[in-house]
Amino acid sequence: MVDLRLPSLRWAEPPEGPVLVLLDQTRLPAEEVELSVTDVPGLVEAIRSLVVRGAPLLGVTGAYGVALAAARGYDVAEAARSLAEARPTAVNLAYGVRRAVAAYDAAGGSGERAAAAALAEARALHREDVEDSERMAAFGRELLGELLPGGRYRLLTHCNTGALVSMGDGTAFAVARAAHLAGELRRLWVDETRPLLQGARLTAWEAARAGMPYSVQVDGAAGSLFAAGEVDAVLVGADRIAADGSVANKVGTYGLSVLARHHGVPFVVVAPVSTVDLATADGAGIRIEQRSGHEVTELAPGVSVAPVGAQAYNPAFDVTPPELVTAIVTDRGVVSPVDHGALAEVCSRSRSYQSPSGNGMMGS
Amino acid sequence: MVDLRLPSLRWAEPPEGPVLVLLDQTRLPAEEVELSVTDVPGLVEAIRSLVVRGAPLLGVTGAYGVALAAARGYDVAEAARSLAEARPTAVNLAYGVRRAVAAYDAAGGSGERAAAAALAEARALHREDVEDSERMAAFGRELLGELLPGGRYRLLTHCNTGALVSMGDGTAFAVARAAHLAGELRRLWVDETRPLLQGARLTAWEAARAGMPYSVQVDGAAGSLFAAGEVDAVLVGADRIAADGSVANKVGTYGLSVLARHHGVPFVVVAPVSTVDLATADGAGIRIEQRSGHEVTELAPGVSVAPVGAQAYNPAFDVTPPELVTAIVTDRGVVSPVDHGALAEVCSRSRSYQSPSGNGMMGS
Repeated sequence: MVDLRLPSLRWAEPPEGPVLVLLDQTRLPAEEVELSVTDVPGLVEAIRSLVVRGAPLLGVTGAYGVALAAARGYDVAEAARSLAEARPTAVNLAYGVRRAVAAYDAAGGSGERAAAAALAEARALHREDVEDSERMAAFGRELLGELLPGGRYRLLTHCNTGALVSMGDGTAFAVARAAHLAGELRRLWVDETRPLLQGARLTAWEAARAGMPYSVQVDGAAGSLFAAGEVDAVLVGADRIAADGSVANKVGTYGLSVLARHHGVPFVVVAPVSTVDLATADGAGIRIEQRSGHEVTELAPGVSVAPVGAQAYNPAFDVTPPELVTAIVTDRGVVSPVDHGALAEVCSRSRSYQSPSGNGMMGS
Repeated sequence: MVDLRLPSLRWAEPPEGPVLVLLDQTRLPAEEVELSVTDVPGLVEAIRSLVVRGAPLLGVTGAYGVALAAARGYDVAEAARSLAEARPTAVNLAYGVRRAVAAYDAAGGSGERAAAAALAEARALHREDVEDSERMAAFGRELLGELLPGGRYRLLTHCNTGALVSMGDGTAFAVARAAHLAGELRRLWVDETRPLLQGARLTAWEAARAGMPYSVQVDGAAGSLFAAGEVDAVLVGADRIAADGSVANKVGTYGLSVLARHHGVPFVVVAPVSTVDLATADGAGIRIEQRSGHEVTELAPGVSVAPVGAQAYNPAFDVTPPELVTAIVTDRGVVSPVDHGALAEVCSRSRSYQSPSGNGMMGS
């Protein structure tokens, strides 16, 4: 598999000391700019301002941040706290920080050996993240082959779920790219994904770099594509999956699930098991972040499209109920049909799970 | 009923000669600028550049354009031809031009008397357009009362269908405004309507001027509103209605009809009978205009969001099949359920039709 992964984040050791090099996602696709971070406050600011974003990538960033703090002689406990709090709702960020700190402490809690242990743990998390993407891509591609025998799919996706959210190829996008590399992708339909346009800005950029056949459309044009028979499956990521299989994802996802059901098209969610939150019973328990109406009423800060004072409703996410989800593809196998028992069983599998049937399908 | 109609177009006769005064819709909502047109080439350019837009308004504009040509001593036949061709797909434009020319010719085909006849015909069309809006508003409000007894509706709409597309209150928006004036509107949910944002730019502006409770949301957030039980009915306009009741309207409408059906919410189309095209048998016969991908990939001319060279799919309209349409409200009564026979019967009614039952409902 040709490696076209973007350097969303890399560790470098020039003579003047270790640095974390970040691809600045806020400037894509207009400019591909790298930002070198040498200190903890700079990294905290980069996380807050969305230079790096995406749950899996934030986990890896947090671990490397601890390694940077250790190598540069910062107070590691204090650095860990400020990193973990940079985006308090990002579970993966705190998780990555915690793992690197545990390794640092286990190696003595100070000095070069402990710093090396923190870096080794960050690299381990980095590798795991790459592997998780690869496993989701393989499970997902096999599932598509079963759902849509004959290949040459037209896949529709929403928001950004590619190499920019992970150290690997991402989640839903990773499946689409694997299909492309296998010659099975006829077209990737990319929802522009208002209000922040992650589809038009980031997914289109990743698809172009990967040489995939793709088109961007406004979110409202997805219905036309279904009606014309131009969508063979919908592939999306997830921000949180409740224990019953309810999927919180970027706003607009739920409408796609209803269109998919109306047209008999498979609706597939791709996410690592770390996105499953077994402590939340169902969709009603998922708190939906309401964001500023300015994201809707202004095309850029201060550039208003709506009348002055216009009120806007701007939920960041919506919730798709399990009965509209054909399958959830994880790094430990596929859950289909989606229900509480099947989801919990897949989550309990080991990281190296290989099912006898090949694709890890877990029915109920 | 308080008259809050916007002066989308008005005829004025200052000492230096007659002028058509147009509200420049391309500059809304940032600026409320009027454009005075004194000659035919200027009016053709204003129509082409969307200073005036919307099917009923274009009809009235065409008729006044002929009156202006006659009053200013232009060759009326030549002026009529260039006006009718300014936007060749706008059926109403040619219709308005034709009516004014017929009146001009019937009054001698030259001189002051003929010019006065053309102006009188433009004013007649203007009055009819206002009356059509009022009749649609009344029929529509009565239908809502039957579908949703108890009042206090949350209505969701798409694109712009208000006073900016007509000399009256418009089509779907006219029904919402009538409900508001009767104290029956709890909220108007306004889809921003990408790519050209007619909802955020124009409908929000009209709703704010009319003092209506409204919110704007990205098109993808409509699903969240349905899921939360926040939508009591969908009201949209139409660009063309085929003989079987298939409705071509702004892209994004079809997805709303599928969401409405999934949630058991009425989906109501409001359009004058002049929008019904009995010569087109069904939805498959409606040609959908494909517009430039730049409308999707650029937020403003030259301000790109997607990567350079990104391909975009940008249909201007989509088609909603009759089985997903609860009712079509016209200026001559309501068609529900929607089928070929019921639609043809309503179209054959006289302009002054009053049904014994009050609301003009035509079942099948």
